[in-house]
Amino acid sequence: MFIFWVSANSVLLSGPSSLSFRSHTCGELRSDHVGHTVTLCGWVQYLRNDLFVILRDFSGLTQILIPQEESAGHLKAVLCDLTAESVIKVTGTVRQRPAGQENKGMPTGDIEVLAENVEVFNVSRKLPFEIKDFVKKSESLRMQYRYLDLRSSHMQRNLRLRSELVMRMREFLCNVHGFVDVETPTLFKRTPGGAKEFVVPSREPGRFYSLPQSPQQFKQLLMVAGVDRYFQIARCYRDEGSKPDRQPEFTQVDLEMSFVDQTGIMSIVEGLLQYSWPAEKGPIKVPFRTMTHEEAMRDYGVDKPDTRFSMKVGDFEFLRSALSHPGGCVQAVCVPGGAVRKETFPVAGSELSLVLVRADGTLKSPLKKLLSVSSTEALLNRTGAKPGDLLLMAAGSLHTVRPLLGSLRLQCADVLESHGVSLREPSVFHFLWVVDFPLFLPKEDEPEQLESAHHPFTAPLPEDTHLLYTEPHKVRGQHYDLVLNGCEIGGGSIRIHRASEQLHVLKNILREDPSLLSHLLEALDSGAPPHGGIALGLDRLVSIMVGASSIRDVIAFPKSFRGHDIMSCAPDLVSEEELKSYHISVRWPTEQGGGGEEGK
Amino acid sequence: MFIFWVSANSVLLSGPSSLSFRSHTCGELRSDHVGHTVTLCGWVQYLRNDLFVILRDFSGLTQILIPQEESAGHLKAVLCDLTAESVIKVTGTVRQRPAGQENKGMPTGDIEVLAENVEVFNVSRKLPFEIKDFVKKSESLRMQYRYLDLRSSHMQRNLRLRSELVMRMREFLCNVHGFVDVETPTLFKRTPGGAKEFVVPSREPGRFYSLPQSPQQFKQLLMVAGVDRYFQIARCYRDEGSKPDRQPEFTQVDLEMSFVDQTGIMSIVEGLLQYSWPAEKGPIKVPFRTMTHEEAMRDYGVDKPDTRFSMKVGDFEFLRSALSHPGGCVQAVCVPGGAVRKETFPVAGSELSLVLVRADGTLKSPLKKLLSVSSTEALLNRTGAKPGDLLLMAAGSLHTVRPLLGSLRLQCADVLESHGVSLREPSVFHFLWVVDFPLFLPKEDEPEQLESAHHPFTAPLPEDTHLLYTEPHKVRGQHYDLVLNGCEIGGGSIRIHRASEQLHVLKNILREDPSLLSHLLEALDSGAPPHGGIALGLDRLVSIMVGASSIRDVIAFPKSFRGHDIMSCAPDLVSEEELKSYHISVRWPTEQGGGGEEGK
Repeated sequence: MFIFWVSANSVLLSGPSSLSFRSHTCGELRSDHVGHTVTLCGWVQYLRNDLFVILRDFSGLTQILIPQEESAGHLKAVLCDLTAESVIKVTGTVRQRPAGQENKGMPTGDIEVLAENVEVFNVSRKLPFEIKDFVKKSESLRMQYRYLDLRSSHMQRNLRLRSELVMRMREFLCNVHGFVDVETPTLFKRTPGGAKEFVVPSREPGRFYSLPQSPQQFKQLLMVAGVDRYFQIARCYRDEGSKPDRQPEFTQVDLEMSFVDQTGIMSIVEGLLQYSWPAEKGPIKVPFRTMTHEEAMRDYGVDKPDTRFSMKVGDFEFLRSALSHPGGCVQAVCVPGGAVRKETFPVAGSELSLVLVRADGTLKSPLKKLLSVSSTEALLNRTGAKPGDLLLMAAGSLHTVRPLLGSLRLQCADVLESHGVSLREPSVFHFLWVVDFPLFLPKEDEPEQLESAHHPFTAPLPEDTHLLYTEPHKVRGQHYDLVLNGCEIGGGSIRIHRASEQLHVLKNILREDPSLLSHLLEALDSGAPPHGGIALGLDRLVSIMVGASSIRDVIAFPKSFRGHDIMSCAPDLVSEEELKSYHISVRWPTEQGGGGEEGK
Repeated sequence: MFIFWVSANSVLLSGPSSLSFRSHTCGELRSDHVGHTVTLCGWVQYLRNDLFVILRDFSGLTQILIPQEESAGHLKAVLCDLTAESVIKVTGTVRQRPAGQENKGMPTGDIEVLAENVEVFNVSRKLPFEIKDFVKKSESLRMQYRYLDLRSSHMQRNLRLRSELVMRMREFLCNVHGFVDVETPTLFKRTPGGAKEFVVPSREPGRFYSLPQSPQQFKQLLMVAGVDRYFQIARCYRDEGSKPDRQPEFTQVDLEMSFVDQTGIMSIVEGLLQYSWPAEKGPIKVPFRTMTHEEAMRDYGVDKPDTRFSMKVGDFEFLRSALSHPGGCVQAVCVPGGAVRKETFPVAGSELSLVLVRADGTLKSPLKKLLSVSSTEALLNRTGAKPGDLLLMAAGSLHTVRPLLGSLRLQCADVLESHGVSLREPSVFHFLWVVDFPLFLPKEDEPEQLESAHHPFTAPLPEDTHLLYTEPHKVRGQHYDLVLNGCEIGGGSIRIHRASEQLHVLKNILREDPSLLSHLLEALDSGAPPHGGIALGLDRLVSIMVGASSIRDVIAFPKSFRGHDIMSCAPDLVSEEELKSYHISVRWPTEQGGGGEEGK
């Protein structure tokens, strides 16, 4: 058992079978190998007619032929006795399959291996589900037995594709562009107001570390430190309770560069994605399309437009008085062929009116009587609506109408696709930069007060810098979001590199206590270069790339919706004794007299 | 400012200056570039005689010549006004330095750049210390202003060497040997008795995640999952309070393979280090030397011998009766030339006797009168002691004498080196495998009870497996430690892959509650392949490689001895309000009536 496999008297020195008990993987044997003696290791996929064992590893399946001669009785008995998912090593000779028995659907389908020797490493119990791609499993069963779920060919593919993608990204950044891979701490100081940061008690009473949501401060400090080009595949943490398809820990492709502008960062990211994009997914074209935040909101009602299909939001100012909305706006989305499926479309709120275009080009709608002939004609012209189409019209303030129609546009696309209309090609990837975001937004609960649209370190557009001191609400930031198929997969900015400007933003505009960021302000005052960067959400990027419905399908051991590891039962109870050294105790909800989340 | 630098009408598409404001780095200009117009960005190292600005970036220094003509008065004024560490962009023409003014000690010392244009990005305040390699700074000042400390050429070199090393390791594992880079969770379930694990409160009362000390369970589960070959540059956590040169978070090169034995893992690691070893540090030879644990303890008195020098521990059983130690052992270390420096050597405890070898070959020692002429002769022969040497002799039980002499051997080596004796060449790297460790050791406080020497998942040597059921204290494990210059830089093992064997070890030998590891036992019962792996301590490895005295010199933002981030003041106080959502409250020591660590 402890002599490893030697091929032509020498150990394999590279490849997936190097230094292994096996000579080949289960996916690689072809007709060329006929006559060779090979050793395979793997899992028993199934037995067939006491004649074949189908053996599986990460790379595929090979058919093992069970010898039927009496002299091989013991070998036959061992093989025929195997339970599914048992683990064996088989040595044997590669043979051509008899004519007519080839399996064209199987990469190794031209050959089989006549078993000569077998070693059973482990016998498998009866499993809670079979390892077959067509077997449907519940999400909770998959999570509880994740080590079985990962045996499926699609999870194997997803994990390997992710690994290869990251490797290519590193090659591009490190080897091609001189980036330095620097690890930054995850035990850090709590960000003021960082409600989504996990805390980690230390052994000093009352003092806590915090798990940061991103290495933002560290990457900027590395630029001040003269590291010039930093990147990291960074583990980040966010405590959001149970938001759908969010994970308490996630991974960012995090980079920062000195002596660069927005165009430079965008070009690096385009190069990065083009270089690392899996060949099997087809090439992607650069540069990516760019759209301003204002254009995105105007045409798509959202700051992360799905540009794979049109159905843009149109503005119909000329209808304002006809529809008695002098103070607001009138906007519409045209759903092609939507008239016949009117009932299946979402209808939300009183702001919305449906207008059907009849076969004869006339309208069917409560609004009809309000519209003159010329208005009707102009409406049809400008929307391009044809007989059978449906117009979703909304009137009201710009701030409510745009997001409403933006959201309806996406819901209608889903409905159309569920009816077989092909709107969005699954294998098509539409990258889009959204730029020129406002730097500040009014606070929701206190609209006179401004807060950062992204974070307080974003630099203003050069042409807007003077407005920082006069009309800060008008300032646009050097922020850029990267959108893929309507999902935000990254965001970044050029940062403020002058201490005085950063202090003004923190103190005078955001009205925050600058002493909490004194180390950063001091750093900017110590010779900070102009710099900027971006963070890409790796989990989301890979999940879109492989067409997964959840990021859980591209993470080896994800948490459930509620943040649980169902396999090991984390988070778990910890004794008061163990908590003592951290100087904390649990406030049980019943002891507190309500206010907590009870009955969990 | 937002037009990036264009060389011969095209943006640089690769290299460290791609997509940057600069055309070259400060370290790359040579005589070949004379006549070229270049743009450099960097920090003002210093000004000299109002004639030169020495400009620095990560790659080196370039001398900028300040034009002296009256027409360039403004440019001269700007440059002469610069404070040290201000950040500028300079465009100018590369010139040969006048004959006799070359600086052979500076890679760019043949040229200078005549400034034609300058942009000042940022002016630096007066800094707490100068960025010059010869300026000594206190450790606490370095930590408080880490972003300045990192500007030093040796910290730049260390971070870049680390990044390049890791890149090469990835290439070897991923591209050459088919490993899959898989990220495993850091929010996990608390290990039973895991006193060194940080806890992370969740939003469910009383439930905590834990930050694992290693991905041990996950890497084994990935093997059960059929991932075949896993690696990860893994962030790990260990709460040890303030042990010297330990960090609460650290990094492991973590790998695991299926269908492999101990020899296979050791070969992969040897290949990995040989492939990734920096060329500037000279090649390393494989295979590494291997020593059993018993040999290491016998010859060096320690399980991680520094094999760069001899001074082995010798056994002198024949002196036992002469020295009246019938029950114990008599051992000695010979310190060459130690007699003359006798006073400077450590003398610890009553077990130890010093024996000086006089110039005439006679001994000077209280023991002298106990030793016969033939014993004396045999002692000198066997130790190889020469006139002027010092023998450190100890008698007593093997368990105390070996570690005592092992530790004295190292202390004596330090003393000899402090006196200018060259024992250990700093540029020499001695790798050593230590194998055949005992699988179990008696518990310190309960010697009848066994505990794992490393962890409960280590497989026994095949020839010792039967002893698991009869004499477990005699079982040796398939564990291997990798030692470099006397430091343990890695450890790993072949794991138990059969559920029944794992259950026996947990339940019958270690007397632990197997239900706490039920998910792992279930996994082993579901078709687990034979597997094994290793973890290398990356911080320690790099620190030895670069000759750093502390791992803090190879970590960008390390914590202090006491686990503090001095720059940002982490860990920090968190309000009771913020802790409410985690259902915990602080137990202040005064409220508890003592027992805590007060007065911090």
